Amino acid sequence: MKIYGDVSSGNCYKLKLVCALLGIEHEWVNINALKGEHKTPEYLAINPNGKIPAMQLDDGRCLSESNAMLNFLAHDSPLLPTDAFELAKVAQWQSFEQYSHEPYIAVARFIQFYLGLPDERRAEYEAKHAPGYHALDVMEQQLKRTPYLCGEYFTTADISLYAYTHVAHEGGFDLTAYPAIQAWLERVRALPGYVDMQG
Amino acid sequence: MKIYGDVSSGNCYKLKLVCALLGIEHEWVNINALKGEHKTPEYLAINPNGKIPAMQLDDGRCLSESNAMLNFLAHDSPLLPTDAFELAKVAQWQSFEQYSHEPYIAVARFIQFYLGLPDERRAEYEAKHAPGYHALDVMEQQLKRTPYLCGEYFTTADISLYAYTHVAHEGGFDLTAYPAIQAWLERVRALPGYVDMQG
Repeated sequence: MKIYGDVSSGNCYKLKLVCALLGIEHEWVNINALKGEHKTPEYLAINPNGKIPAMQLDDGRCLSESNAMLNFLAHDSPLLPTDAFELAKVAQWQSFEQYSHEPYIAVARFIQFYLGLPDERRAEYEAKHAPGYHALDVMEQQLKRTPYLCGEYFTTADISLYAYTHVAHEGGFDLTAYPAIQAWLERVRALPGYVDMQG
Repeated sequence: MKIYGDVSSGNCYKLKLVCALLGIEHEWVNINALKGEHKTPEYLAINPNGKIPAMQLDDGRCLSESNAMLNFLAHDSPLLPTDAFELAKVAQWQSFEQYSHEPYIAVARFIQFYLGLPDERRAEYEAKHAPGYHALDVMEQQLKRTPYLCGEYFTTADISLYAYTHVAHEGGFDLTAYPAIQAWLERVRALPGYVDMQG
């Protein structure tokens, strides 16, 4: 199995982390999106949408979209519930991540950390903060009540949200007012097998 | 079971359609987002993220995010595969929908159809078209090869993408150059139990 991605992208890191936590063997193929390597004909044959990460199984079948890949890799593991409602809760938080969290928190980080906060993108960058903080508010509300997003147990939903939340400061977000999120970040970092983003 | 939503929202229509196709009994509670009904304390108790749709089971448990709800409702039905890879493909297309399709095709429709294309949002509206057409290109490429997005069978991934694709013209998208998408739209409309968006 090959996984295609950039280790400093949060969406790609989700897969690095799940493979480390579950001891899943794989070949990592670096794709540098800043150099346009996700738009080559070879890569578009793997993911026609031209985004990283993606993966190719040994039988040639391909899969893309980080959260879909994450749950596929965690299938039949303790990180993914089998009960229909609990599984839907994982999917709920993952949709929340892709729609209400990543477009603000990851994109603010992209503008600041990768692009160095150029003047022409400053207004866009600043507009990311209010909705990004709203997403953090929603997470904080849940994490005040339960140790993990879906309740008592760590699931792939936590991996999905951890990926960009733990580097939110690189997009200008201050987590001081979010003690439950901070405690949850520490809880994830303490998991056996945990690896850092650049690891 | 109560489902909260606005019948003219594509994200809410996904649930109307799956309930119609599978004969799922439910109580529909209208929430008018244009009037701010998704930000009341009562509604935020159901979905703290303040978005429609959401649902509440008879035992009080709540769920939100259209695609998570959709797959929950289709659990144990022919619309949702059980094989891990096939299930991941459904999730892949649903993530694609929320990240690469809906923010362009649904938002362009919102600006044109709901707001009447006000001058101050025209630049934003026009900027939605190139990435929206890219999403349609990706769908067309798949639907040239298979009758449904995940292959031979209709799944919840088709419902997720049908919701806003079939009203893409209300956001200024022209589907003339997409014969495979057009044939797929007709295939969905012909399904037993199909209901229209405002139905």
